[in-house]
Amino acid sequence: MAAIKVGVLGAKGKVGRTICEAVAEAADLELVARVDAGDDPRALVDAGAEVAVDFTQPDAVMGNLEFLISHGISAVVGTTGFTAERLDRVRGWLEEHAAAGANVLIAPNFAISAVLTMRFAEIAAPFFESAEVIEMHHPHKKDAPSGTAVHTAEGIARARREAGLDAQPDATEQALDGARGAAVEGVPVHAVRMTGAVAHETVILGTEGQSLTIKQDSYDRTSFVPGVLTGVRRIAEHPGLTVGLESYLGL
Amino acid sequence: MAAIKVGVLGAKGKVGRTICEAVAEAADLELVARVDAGDDPRALVDAGAEVAVDFTQPDAVMGNLEFLISHGISAVVGTTGFTAERLDRVRGWLEEHAAAGANVLIAPNFAISAVLTMRFAEIAAPFFESAEVIEMHHPHKKDAPSGTAVHTAEGIARARREAGLDAQPDATEQALDGARGAAVEGVPVHAVRMTGAVAHETVILGTEGQSLTIKQDSYDRTSFVPGVLTGVRRIAEHPGLTVGLESYLGL
Amino acid sequence: MAAIKVGVLGAKGKVGRTICEAVAEAADLELVARVDAGDDPRALVDAGAEVAVDFTQPDAVMGNLEFLISHGISAVVGTTGFTAERLDRVRGWLEEHAAAGANVLIAPNFAISAVLTMRFAEIAAPFFESAEVIEMHHPHKKDAPSGTAVHTAEGIARARREAGLDAQPDATEQALDGARGAAVEGVPVHAVRMTGAVAHETVILGTEGQSLTIKQDSYDRTSFVPGVLTGVRRIAEHPGLTVGLESYLGL
Amino acid sequence: MAAIKVGVLGAKGKVGRTICEAVAEAADLELVARVDAGDDPRALVDAGAEVAVDFTQPDAVMGNLEFLISHGISAVVGTTGFTAERLDRVRGWLEEHAAAGANVLIAPNFAISAVLTMRFAEIAAPFFESAEVIEMHHPHKKDAPSGTAVHTAEGIARARREAGLDAQPDATEQALDGARGAAVEGVPVHAVRMTGAVAHETVILGTEGQSLTIKQDSYDRTSFVPGVLTGVRRIAEHPGLTVGLESYLGL
Repeated sequence: MAAIKVGVLGAKGKVGRTICEAVAEAADLELVARVDAGDDPRALVDAGAEVAVDFTQPDAVMGNLEFLISHGISAVVGTTGFTAERLDRVRGWLEEHAAAGANVLIAPNFAISAVLTMRFAEIAAPFFESAEVIEMHHPHKKDAPSGTAVHTAEGIARARREAGLDAQPDATEQALDGARGAAVEGVPVHAVRMTGAVAHETVILGTEGQSLTIKQDSYDRTSFVPGVLTGVRRIAEHPGLTVGLESYLGL
Repeated sequence: MAAIKVGVLGAKGKVGRTICEAVAEAADLELVARVDAGDDPRALVDAGAEVAVDFTQPDAVMGNLEFLISHGISAVVGTTGFTAERLDRVRGWLEEHAAAGANVLIAPNFAISAVLTMRFAEIAAPFFESAEVIEMHHPHKKDAPSGTAVHTAEGIARARREAGLDAQPDATEQALDGARGAAVEGVPVHAVRMTGAVAHETVILGTEGQSLTIKQDSYDRTSFVPGVLTGVRRIAEHPGLTVGLESYLGL
Repeated sequence: MAAIKVGVLGAKGKVGRTICEAVAEAADLELVARVDAGDDPRALVDAGAEVAVDFTQPDAVMGNLEFLISHGISAVVGTTGFTAERLDRVRGWLEEHAAAGANVLIAPNFAISAVLTMRFAEIAAPFFESAEVIEMHHPHKKDAPSGTAVHTAEGIARARREAGLDAQPDATEQALDGARGAAVEGVPVHAVRMTGAVAHETVILGTEGQSLTIKQDSYDRTSFVPGVLTGVRRIAEHPGLTVGLESYLGL
Repeated sequence: MAAIKVGVLGAKGKVGRTICEAVAEAADLELVARVDAGDDPRALVDAGAEVAVDFTQPDAVMGNLEFLISHGISAVVGTTGFTAERLDRVRGWLEEHAAAGANVLIAPNFAISAVLTMRFAEIAAPFFESAEVIEMHHPHKKDAPSGTAVHTAEGIARARREAGLDAQPDATEQALDGARGAAVEGVPVHAVRMTGAVAHETVILGTEGQSLTIKQDSYDRTSFVPGVLTGVRRIAEHPGLTVGLESYLGL
């Protein structure tokens, strides 16, 4: 099987360099173009790139996507800042240039372990009376809880509502302020800040006589790599726009 | 919505009594008959049972099932000892008495957290280079590893094969005997025996920069209850014979 | 070596019965008297009890202790409600009847794993920049966090102060209410309430490149037994009044 | 208080550079000399170093130590290869040059969390019927289990013997080869190899109704830094030769 030809946008950034290395090392992928701010994106076309990876900036990514889609190059995008309106514009370009054959994957989180944790928590939630989320990060983090933890709690809350579950049992009468965490749609979320930690999320679910714990540890900044490569490898099978890595993971 | 009428076979056994209590307490279920060894199973018919729960003995369960199926009473079965031949006989009765409308669920494990752990491990396995299983039980257990842990490892191994993954990376050159666990189709399984423990299983999966841990704790002997009640509640939607709780959990 | 002769006060209560069984089963201990409310405590003297275990009520324990101390019977006490004033009265009796030779151990917590967790957290605290406590209990618990978790956090805070450590690093600028837990003297404490859980406490400590986690699980209501038996076995070596099991554990 | 003047031997190595950075950043320490292979160690004397850190090679460290001790510079040593015979020679130099006032700390492991885990496991071991060790490392590791895990198990075994404990309870009759781990003096040790992992060790101890878990995670190669700095700061209080970081941690 011929290797998939891959170009990288934002190739000189920290994330971009890591992706370039990972693509170069993968036997089934071929790194054909590195493009950075100021470079002409036509280099991707000239090199015959089939898929481009975009970890750039919110002010650059829409221009990149219009170029890629119109030239039939599929895009795996980790750049942030996608609003509903932006997603609609991407869908419009995909329709307009449907004949060119590009697909697009836009995901807020490429850490496979984090995406699976969120999805498993949703699947399991209807079968457990209680569910709480504990996230742990380094102490330089500015927000608490993390966006991923909030998103996880929202998914659990939605799954509980759809299954018709009651509110979580909690007989607490006397509590110190904050002891029971932040309630995100009724799901308690606790944020730990710890020197030495990187990014970690734990979901605990409990019902009679048992509990289920799903835990995700990101040990370093390369944890997005396996998810990006999965995206590159599978984008040909996912027509149009896909938001979130979940469906690429068979979930 | 009318409560589901439930009968319990083996009602005086330890497990049976626990199930009777749980059914009696559930607002959407009605306990209509308790049958034990020596009792006439017609009590189930007379009481209008729609579903019967059977946690009895291998030498009693086939007679029970033939009776239940022929009388149109669905069966949720936790009794052990089902061979392929026995399952075929159950299928035969279901066909023969199809008009009666009974369904059957036979599951080796009703602990929802354990069933989800096994299934999540299989789903996640293709995306991780490494996967190992660690089970922990009280020290009175006679086999090591547990059947559940072996089953979990087999599921992981199957998922890895189907995804075309290579053997797990392991550069070990010098090892004390047993240090790397038991290899179950290439998946290392470690068994811990610990006073105070009940039944616990952990699956760890790792790939670049991250790991995913799925952990199940059974704290006491009632951990099968939520699974049995889920079986009772959903059996009407699962025609014929179902083996394993998985499909009842939407997996 | 002769078995230690043990009497149990509150012998018909749930805890008392469990202690009676455990003493009866221990080869090095002999259960010589069971005394309950309304019984004459002289039965302990008549039976030659060397040590009495008291898990009774706050309104009974002081009378019991005066009797035991004056009759030279050592006491292992798990009854609650000891104020500084009560402890002073016990010390007074011990001095008054010093010739009788009784010793007293009064402990708020006999779960050895919980006592060790608290003490280890204090020992480790000076070497870590960050420390947080997460406790998990069944959802029927009325207070959050648990007294044990608060006590643990206070011990960590004291150890940090004595070592001259700065406040814990935490760059949080935006937080949902409660996300960062309850601050107990600057140590964040998080309380999880989970169906199926019993009593669990985790202390996480972090510094550059590493973390240390100390976790305690109580799986059932017998978790005080090993601590009580340790108290009975070692009380002869601890003259006078001892408060807390710590010093019996060599800590 | 004046900053402690620190020199680093092996200053251009990976570890040495990390130590230089950490010393330079610490407000209470002053980096006064960087010495590498080929450099004249007199630079340490000229710069007025009070303490030198040596993470060099077995063939260099003895020469370094003789020089440092004879010049009254204390040494914090992480270099490997110390035999009983080598330690005796170091003791000899310390006696010979006692007037110069140097102290020496030689430790096989400067990861504070690992040292505390080992020591806490030993302290706790006498109070638990069961104890097992699970270590997890990246899959490039050549030995299984790790030296640290073996050392931990030996410490637990010694503490159990000294407390007169029986063999660990284990009713296993049927086992897959390796399932129960490697027995190190009767303590089972399990080694997990996992892509993405760095270095992690877990000790589980169990007795009636409860368990205690002590877990250590090293997330990156800087995990020795806090231990080295503790060594530098406290060496003046520990006369002569100290082997192992334990006593510096108040254990």
